[in-house]
Amino acid sequence: MNTKVFHNLSYGVYIISSLDGERPTGCTANSVMQITSSPATLALSMNHDNFTNSCIEKTGKFAVSILSETSDPSLIGQFGFQSGRDVNKFENILFETKEGLPVLTDSCGYIICKVIDKMETSTHTVFLGEVIDGDIQSVSPSMTYAYYHRVIKGKSPKNAPTYLPEEESENTIPSKTSWVCSICGYVYDEEAPFEELPDSYTCPICKQPKSKFVKQ
Amino acid sequence: MNTKVFHNLSYGVYIISSLDGERPTGCTANSVMQITSSPATLALSMNHDNFTNSCIEKTGKFAVSILSETSDPSLIGQFGFQSGRDVNKFENILFETKEGLPVLTDSCGYIICKVIDKMETSTHTVFLGEVIDGDIQSVSPSMTYAYYHRVIKGKSPKNAPTYLPEEESENTIPSKTSWVCSICGYVYDEEAPFEELPDSYTCPICKQPKSKFVKQ
Repeated sequence: MNTKVFHNLSYGVYIISSLDGERPTGCTANSVMQITSSPATLALSMNHDNFTNSCIEKTGKFAVSILSETSDPSLIGQFGFQSGRDVNKFENILFETKEGLPVLTDSCGYIICKVIDKMETSTHTVFLGEVIDGDIQSVSPSMTYAYYHRVIKGKSPKNAPTYLPEEESENTIPSKTSWVCSICGYVYDEEAPFEELPDSYTCPICKQPKSKFVKQ
Repeated sequence: MNTKVFHNLSYGVYIISSLDGERPTGCTANSVMQITSSPATLALSMNHDNFTNSCIEKTGKFAVSILSETSDPSLIGQFGFQSGRDVNKFENILFETKEGLPVLTDSCGYIICKVIDKMETSTHTVFLGEVIDGDIQSVSPSMTYAYYHRVIKGKSPKNAPTYLPEEESENTIPSKTSWVCSICGYVYDEEAPFEELPDSYTCPICKQPKSKFVKQ
């Protein structure tokens, strides 16, 4: 079996949000798909270890904010490479409240779901959500997972269903020495030499400081 | 609720195949996503009315052939706008047999799954399949659902989870009189006037004859 074929499946990039008590929290996800059209339902796959999983379990609701190609890519790192147990992920994030749940302003649309069923697997819960609200927020094209890998040069965190230990796409394999963010895997490939960047440089994906980059 | 936001979710385009006894059959689908990475599992949403659903139920197996941007778009119509109950969909289709199941040669990869769980919804079954084989077949980029709508100008059949009765994207709304395939919704927009096409012209998506086109 060649597990690299899984990279040929197509996804979007989403921020899944819910509530920890009254505190908004959420995480980055790509495994969302529509299951039925009438009534409209979505399936969402979420790792058991994700704090958002337990928040969805408790509240019975989740929101999907759909990132677009113009969404700030640092949202992916803000929501994807740290835990809502430790930090307030919505700090400094523009959001609105819809049906009681936080949705990101910097997205091309949102969908709010009420959990009506679920299926457990070894590592992930598949939540089935009935859509109770949704709207378009911008006309920018949706960010696809391929776009995230190819253009933004991001990788998958370990909790993602699509994580591959040997994850390396042809587009991110460095042709020579390159600097890689040790937190999120972002490969620096701008024209300016990495060494000459100011110390205030931060990873465009996860906002970690320049010191977190390692030479490869 | 604005159901058009569902179009902002991202998908690929897949041919799902299984067996009717010993006869290969299958259908077009877009609702496939990876659920866990180790062991690797996929979820697939399939309408109860699809003949392929009952074949997966009986055999306990399904194959996913991943269409690429260079795959013949008529495969989508061949597998998507008619039923395997009525026709042999694999007639004149190049395929290979992997783990006993047919996979399309004209795809960028295939994944073979054994059903290990399922979740029923009002109109669709969500099959959870454990991956037993898979490989890459070409380096062409995967066909996304957005590409299918935008470039190939295809629509969704009624059994698709993503079907919208009012389905019309900005890219397929004709600016003036246009000819539309009444079977699959393909909008003719080549330079040559439709009326002057030879009678042998067939829809590039579903291969139906010129007579099935209607003026809009």
